[in-house]
Amino acid sequence: MGGVVTTQATPLDRLRDWLAQERLAAACITDPISIAYLTGFRADTAERLMALAVRGDSAALLVPALELDNAESRVREIEVVGWSDGQDPWPALARLLGSPSRLGVEKGHLTLAAAERLRSRLDGAELTDVGLELRRLRLIKAPPEQEALARAAEATDRVTVRLLEALAAGQSELEVASAIARLTEEEGALPSFPPLVQSGPNSALPHLMPSDRRLQSGDLVLLDFGAAVDGYKGDTTRMAVVGEPAARQVELHRLVLEAHDAAIAAARPGATTGAVDAAAREVIAAAGLGDRFIHRVGHGLGLQVHEDPSLDPGSNLELEEGMAFTVEPGVYIPGWGGLRIEDDLIVEAGGARVLTSAPRELFAVPAN
Amino acid sequence: MGGVVTTQATPLDRLRDWLAQERLAAACITDPISIAYLTGFRADTAERLMALAVRGDSAALLVPALELDNAESRVREIEVVGWSDGQDPWPALARLLGSPSRLGVEKGHLTLAAAERLRSRLDGAELTDVGLELRRLRLIKAPPEQEALARAAEATDRVTVRLLEALAAGQSELEVASAIARLTEEEGALPSFPPLVQSGPNSALPHLMPSDRRLQSGDLVLLDFGAAVDGYKGDTTRMAVVGEPAARQVELHRLVLEAHDAAIAAARPGATTGAVDAAAREVIAAAGLGDRFIHRVGHGLGLQVHEDPSLDPGSNLELEEGMAFTVEPGVYIPGWGGLRIEDDLIVEAGGARVLTSAPRELFAVPAN
Repeated sequence: MGGVVTTQATPLDRLRDWLAQERLAAACITDPISIAYLTGFRADTAERLMALAVRGDSAALLVPALELDNAESRVREIEVVGWSDGQDPWPALARLLGSPSRLGVEKGHLTLAAAERLRSRLDGAELTDVGLELRRLRLIKAPPEQEALARAAEATDRVTVRLLEALAAGQSELEVASAIARLTEEEGALPSFPPLVQSGPNSALPHLMPSDRRLQSGDLVLLDFGAAVDGYKGDTTRMAVVGEPAARQVELHRLVLEAHDAAIAAARPGATTGAVDAAAREVIAAAGLGDRFIHRVGHGLGLQVHEDPSLDPGSNLELEEGMAFTVEPGVYIPGWGGLRIEDDLIVEAGGARVLTSAPRELFAVPAN
Repeated sequence: MGGVVTTQATPLDRLRDWLAQERLAAACITDPISIAYLTGFRADTAERLMALAVRGDSAALLVPALELDNAESRVREIEVVGWSDGQDPWPALARLLGSPSRLGVEKGHLTLAAAERLRSRLDGAELTDVGLELRRLRLIKAPPEQEALARAAEATDRVTVRLLEALAAGQSELEVASAIARLTEEEGALPSFPPLVQSGPNSALPHLMPSDRRLQSGDLVLLDFGAAVDGYKGDTTRMAVVGEPAARQVELHRLVLEAHDAAIAAARPGATTGAVDAAAREVIAAAGLGDRFIHRVGHGLGLQVHEDPSLDPGSNLELEEGMAFTVEPGVYIPGWGGLRIEDDLIVEAGGARVLTSAPRELFAVPAN
């Protein structure tokens, strides 16, 4: 047998191969995330049509005129066509698509209104879904995507370290959230999502938004945030405590960290997503707190902060090299508080590489 | 003739009247903005189905289980039904809709995938658009909506006043944008959109995002931001200059303010949106700068920061009492800088009420 050949096929090449296999002459891609994945051009033109027309031997990107310069400077080997307000973009799009009798579209993104316009412009062409295949393609991160995820994780780590040092009793959750925004921006990064800052009993309620509650002595402080670089998202959770940690806080932090390490150790090619979830869940269940771990152990990470794969008890996707996801077990005791630790991983030969590397210890914030 | 009767019909009543008139037995509303408008419940459940089933004599809101408590506490006289991860929500939704042969949907929001699921659950029911009618209903703001817009404008004004006082030479555009975020939050409000802070030559490029460029002596500084209250958006633009204003800066600011006042004076019931645009455009054209006013004069404002009506040269919608929109003429001189002044209006008998009232003068920032 010969050596392993690393394929240099681009995402667009891989989509084209699939279209050929499915005997689809063309696809019309409208989700900005898919367009970013296939072309490198990121824009959210919400109110105006943007579409990538993919055919066997060509591709063209139709963008609102105000995005034309941006798109042309980002995109390689793809024709870029602009359309102006007041123009009808649908005839131009139909031209770029040719006259397929069957057209690939993202059924989970294309609106019914857009589908009807496409069908009428294309003589009633049958619309068939390419959205699932795009999600499948995005599961395995190509080397440039892995590099972007690594840089996002590094920026996230730098925010973590500076944030923990800046925490002080008396700050409100909203003030801490502002500090996260400021630090992220100082890294030249964008927030992956609105940060979560949950103190004291608030930490027991996953996904509660920051409030004007002020950090006080004895509080657990849950910090869940991330920095995005080139569209790729970092996502981390770290725990702090204000003043001297109580024995129970130390004990549960240690437990969550043990569960976290178990999940990371379980992540390798061939293991299932469900097995990674189970590795963390078993540690927490063995401590009698199984019913306090009330969410999945992790989610895929890439151009979106939540994408495939899902690592939950019911899932059984086999991990492959290049898959990227979070591991984030937690325990939540209503009225007392909650703890979660979250890192970002990429599956590689024999295991997984942890991209985020800021200290995971329970960070002690001075009480005064 | 009798006196004017103020209708107390709710948005949901008005939609039902229209459905009856169109002989539609039911509508399935899926756009979170429409659901907020019809029920008062605001949530963005992006990845999970949320839908309002409207029938002649009942309405039911289907929400992801994690939104159930929130929804029940917000919604009056509407049944709330939750669905959990792992459940299929479509059978429940079909039950809530009854068995209509024709179903109203928002064709510009419903995805093709969702449309296919609905059709197959409802024995191939014909789907017909209610989206345009909802946009039409939303054009006229009811008294509680007008109050929310007024409170959003007041919060926006307070941010304006504090922001202008806090501006200083040497701050970066990004730092000023952070300050806007912080001040907005201190008002207990949310940002209506990511703020624009454009200094010096950057101010000549509408919608350029904040950069690390620092404010320096002689700079025009364009500040475009807004605070949202109860989901309703404020939106304002004010101008500052660092150091002593130059004669040309003062002159063009006066011109834009004159155009702005002309547009406000033109806004009254019976005038067209195009006439309001023309009123501002004529003032700027008379000064020989017609080709430097490169965008429409304003846009509708409500639960979205850009909604109907559009006030552009090609538009000719007749204004009615209760319509709300921005007026925001500007001039942009490439390489030199740009100026814009923006306020929020509601049309009322005989004219329009200006909701934003922070000083509109060219604000002088100390040069050192």
